[in-house]
Amino acid sequence: MNRRKFLSRTVLLTGALTLNPFDLFGKKYDERLNFKGKKAKNIIFMISDGMSNGTLSMANLYSKNILGKETHWMNLYLENKVSRALMDTASASSIVTDSAAASSSFGSGFRVNNGSLNVGINGEHYLPIWQKFKKKGKKAGCVTTVTITHATPAGFCINSAKRSAEPDIAEMYGEFGFDFMMGGGDEFFNPEKRTDKKDVYAAYQKRGYQILKNRSDLKNIDKNKPVLGVFNTGALPYTIDRNNTPNLQHMPTLAEMAKAAIEHMKDNKEGFVLQIEAGKVDWAAHANDVSALLHDQLAFDEAIKVAMAFAEKDKNTLVIITTDHGNANPGTIYGADATKNFNSIAHYKCTNEYLLNNLHADFNIQQVKDWIAENNQISVYDDEAKRILNFYNGIEKDEEGLYNYKKLPYRAFSEIQKKHNSVGWISMDHSSDYVELAIYGPGSEFLQPFVKNTDLHYLMLKAAEVENNF
Amino acid sequence: MNRRKFLSRTVLLTGALTLNPFDLFGKKYDERLNFKGKKAKNIIFMISDGMSNGTLSMANLYSKNILGKETHWMNLYLENKVSRALMDTASASSIVTDSAAASSSFGSGFRVNNGSLNVGINGEHYLPIWQKFKKKGKKAGCVTTVTITHATPAGFCINSAKRSAEPDIAEMYGEFGFDFMMGGGDEFFNPEKRTDKKDVYAAYQKRGYQILKNRSDLKNIDKNKPVLGVFNTGALPYTIDRNNTPNLQHMPTLAEMAKAAIEHMKDNKEGFVLQIEAGKVDWAAHANDVSALLHDQLAFDEAIKVAMAFAEKDKNTLVIITTDHGNANPGTIYGADATKNFNSIAHYKCTNEYLLNNLHADFNIQQVKDWIAENNQISVYDDEAKRILNFYNGIEKDEEGLYNYKKLPYRAFSEIQKKHNSVGWISMDHSSDYVELAIYGPGSEFLQPFVKNTDLHYLMLKAAEVENNF
Ligand SMILES: [Zn+2]
Ligand SMILES: [Zn+2]
Repeated sequence: MNRRKFLSRTVLLTGALTLNPFDLFGKKYDERLNFKGKKAKNIIFMISDGMSNGTLSMANLYSKNILGKETHWMNLYLENKVSRALMDTASASSIVTDSAAASSSFGSGFRVNNGSLNVGINGEHYLPIWQKFKKKGKKAGCVTTVTITHATPAGFCINSAKRSAEPDIAEMYGEFGFDFMMGGGDEFFNPEKRTDKKDVYAAYQKRGYQILKNRSDLKNIDKNKPVLGVFNTGALPYTIDRNNTPNLQHMPTLAEMAKAAIEHMKDNKEGFVLQIEAGKVDWAAHANDVSALLHDQLAFDEAIKVAMAFAEKDKNTLVIITTDHGNANPGTIYGADATKNFNSIAHYKCTNEYLLNNLHADFNIQQVKDWIAENNQISVYDDEAKRILNFYNGIEKDEEGLYNYKKLPYRAFSEIQKKHNSVGWISMDHSSDYVELAIYGPGSEFLQPFVKNTDLHYLMLKAAEVENNF
Repeated sequence: MNRRKFLSRTVLLTGALTLNPFDLFGKKYDERLNFKGKKAKNIIFMISDGMSNGTLSMANLYSKNILGKETHWMNLYLENKVSRALMDTASASSIVTDSAAASSSFGSGFRVNNGSLNVGINGEHYLPIWQKFKKKGKKAGCVTTVTITHATPAGFCINSAKRSAEPDIAEMYGEFGFDFMMGGGDEFFNPEKRTDKKDVYAAYQKRGYQILKNRSDLKNIDKNKPVLGVFNTGALPYTIDRNNTPNLQHMPTLAEMAKAAIEHMKDNKEGFVLQIEAGKVDWAAHANDVSALLHDQLAFDEAIKVAMAFAEKDKNTLVIITTDHGNANPGTIYGADATKNFNSIAHYKCTNEYLLNNLHADFNIQQVKDWIAENNQISVYDDEAKRILNFYNGIEKDEEGLYNYKKLPYRAFSEIQKKHNSVGWISMDHSSDYVELAIYGPGSEFLQPFVKNTDLHYLMLKAAEVENNF
């Protein structure tokens, strides 16, 4: 019997076709059809901040070549579990967004100017999406590897004309009344580190929050009190440095924070909403720091595993997996040794940040070469070592990179690495590229193949059957 | 009635749901469902060679910002007409493919080493896909903006251990017996230009081919004779130069060649297969030449319009739209003037190739500045003009770029342009990025969300219901 005859006979004889028309044609069973018409009780919104298409691709190539397996993200595709789209990430002020305007597009449903958090181009204050869901009785939280007051979590929670107002945002979160927040940013809560000496932790304690400062605290969370977890002065360390530095391991991983957040909020009758951000993927791209980038993208992938394990069991959870914008468009470049060179990144013991932070002006050229060889397993030329050293003894200056607080020679060093690892970058900043977006669960059927970032705001409300009348 | 009640009632009452379950949920009607179980009589395989995600994105941004409309490619997504996937483009020898191995993966269903055309890693000769379809009675053809003997068309048609054997490939095509071939490459057919002085055109005429040399010949094609159209010595000119240079307009556009090919082959009882390649998108990326890149990508988009107009009317045609690999990962970089800078590319009157080809060693600095200002509407500094001039008077040398036959200072010039147009590039060569893939028509239901390039070989055979027993 040929396929068409078989199809038409099936249509006539049985209604079974209705639920999964795809599997008749040799296509893997499409799990998405399970969720048609179902309401999303919970939403998990996952953002690998500043993840260019090349970052996603290279993380999977690294995972396959070095770890011998596909990433969880790509497995969702191989197992046909999600709907995909391409997303236009522009802001109101530019075809290239910053993370504040990008998060606001998800958070408010409007494009705002770069730098703004849910404050419109004429000063409008849009109610942030996590506040909308709080009003409907859902619990709400964010976990991130940067400061919890950073643009991406803030864009789901509060309004601020300036993303840089992190000390204020730390206080505004109290008004908003989140249920779970974890990441870095002690500098914005701790009276000893704040300029105004305010004890923001004390204010949260008064509101009934439990304050967590250590990874081990994650084992003893009181389910009946909201959680504020702050584990570092600024952002959390990069994954590869954390993995290789015992005294950084008192801070939790993104996957651990995600698991704790889900555990804490999952039994709420009206459900929960959770943002999970791999914020340092963006910082790594700003630094053209390839081992930082790939290992933090893989740490994000471990958080995907956690979110999906819950969602697949729960069956009432919408999971959105995406980025807010591209950054630096990294890619492995053609050449006879491209694969070997790319795979050599597995020998890197640390980030470029760590390597360059621990290089000092009093090093001689041989010491610079030895230090690089020890950490990257590469042998650099004398003149390359000398060039790097020039940045430490004041001969060269002003290295770029948005989060380059110590003015390290990130670009000069990644140019040297490029000869050995074949990875190139277009810049140290965000790009206009359309980005990857995957959605699992109830509501995923609303996804169109090419969307604007703002569309996701309305998709979340629709999936959760929440009318947008705030 | 809520959605779920409505759904379950509908399932009970009617079978109408079977054909389009999606439109109940507010999703646009999904045209792909029309094709379930239908056989593909015709196949059109469209390749924008070397198109990174950033090239696709920037072409759409340019089209929206400057031309006021979405591209045809993005409209296919906005209208929900196609299935999409991410494609891994690796070859047998590298995570970064060349165009020969990439085309062979589609052409043979096997990954081969870079440089090979359907010759396996142990010397196996795989029957190329257009030969398979010829054996089933289909007409077969290729149109391209580079030489018709170049890697991408050759990979669908012939076997050769070396892609560089273009003079031999010109002859091998005769054995294969294509029905329609158009592009550049007179140097490989013309006895006056071939080293061996063979008159390859005469051999084709003996086989019954009509030889076309001019765009105007497209109006008088004899439907009963196969077609060989060769319009230039090497590749055809870039779109923006062709558009602005009357004496290049005797050569057809990619869309015109595509239309002629479809017209010529569409009435064949057993159908036809056609490859449409925008080969100079790759060359533009190799040259970091942004106006060449965007205008050739938009010319490819016009060919999409032609292919889709036919396929939507015909209803028996599978259309595959993709690239063979990324190249140079271009992107617009964040900054206060990113949008204005990107939009300034609309003022460029020519490619960098044209601009640099018409700059001469006897120019003084002011003449160099004037020439750049005339063609790009930008004012460069004296030392920038001097640097460019250095490449013409022998002070600097050896500029890179795969198709940089005249050793023009492409990279140095695009570095200068970057300050004005905010577009960056990771290199002058291919990248490992996973790439965009869209499929329309019968057979599109077989597409999985994450595929290997080789999967497309088997998808074509399956869609056309051709058993792979050659
Ligand atoms: Zn950033
Ligand atoms: Zn190429």
